[in-house]
Amino acid sequence: MSDSPNTSLVSASTKRGPAEYFSGTSWVTMLAGDNPTDCTVADVTFEPGCRNNWHSHPAGQILVVTAGQGYYQEKGQPAQLLRAGDTVSIAPGVVHWHGATANSIFTHLAINPNVKQGVADWLQPVTDEEYRAAHA
Amino acid sequence: MSDSPNTSLVSASTKRGPAEYFSGTSWVTMLAGDNPTDCTVADVTFEPGCRNNWHSHPAGQILVVTAGQGYYQEKGQPAQLLRAGDTVSIAPGVVHWHGATANSIFTHLAINPNVKQGVADWLQPVTDEEYRAAHA
Repeated sequence: MSDSPNTSLVSASTKRGPAEYFSGTSWVTMLAGDNPTDCTVADVTFEPGCRNNWHSHPAGQILVVTAGQGYYQEKGQPAQLLRAGDTVSIAPGVVHWHGATANSIFTHLAINPNVKQGVADWLQPVTDEEYRAAHA
Repeated sequence: MSDSPNTSLVSASTKRGPAEYFSGTSWVTMLAGDNPTDCTVADVTFEPGCRNNWHSHPAGQILVVTAGQGYYQEKGQPAQLLRAGDTVSIAPGVVHWHGATANSIFTHLAINPNVKQGVADWLQPVTDEEYRAAHA
């Protein structure tokens, strides 16, 4: 056995999600950053009440929920409640947000294929009114 | 909230890994199959002693270990022990195998970007001698 650069222990690399793109506190752990597949994988934990801004991904994104409960909402659509084991496939360019419910932590893997096309195009924050409506 | 085709509950779709590509019993749950990102995500559980054949991926692969202990080995390199939280980024065309240790179950997400380039090119089984050597 050897310690190859192909494998990485990730426990030491958690960072706060950037305040300009999140309402509330989130924690981002990059599991697979720059690598030869051009696909990145991050673990994102939202504290209760935290959500990211409206945004889209030039090459789409897949979410795999691993803990807690949260919401995923596409612009003009009702919010969808997500629980551990749920996955969401987000087409390129689709405007959406995701985040925890008001009362639960929410953790998902964020899988971003073809990041050389760009990672995310960030828009305005989800308003308190929009966020409350997701819980209705 | 609504049940959109973007989300999927995956509990009902587990299948045995194909016997021609695995030595031993594995269980494959597709979390994100055909979808607009051209990136697929599957949960793969190997029973103790189970491993897949030597193979490569035309567009590479990322493994995210979620439970148990297993090995990842590239052709000509020593095997690497993997535990929950470890990730492996596999470059396109690199010949390798992965699977459980002799005494532990092993579960990882298998993330395959750009599957329109092809998913996997399968080769010969990992011999008992090669598998035992991984444990040395």
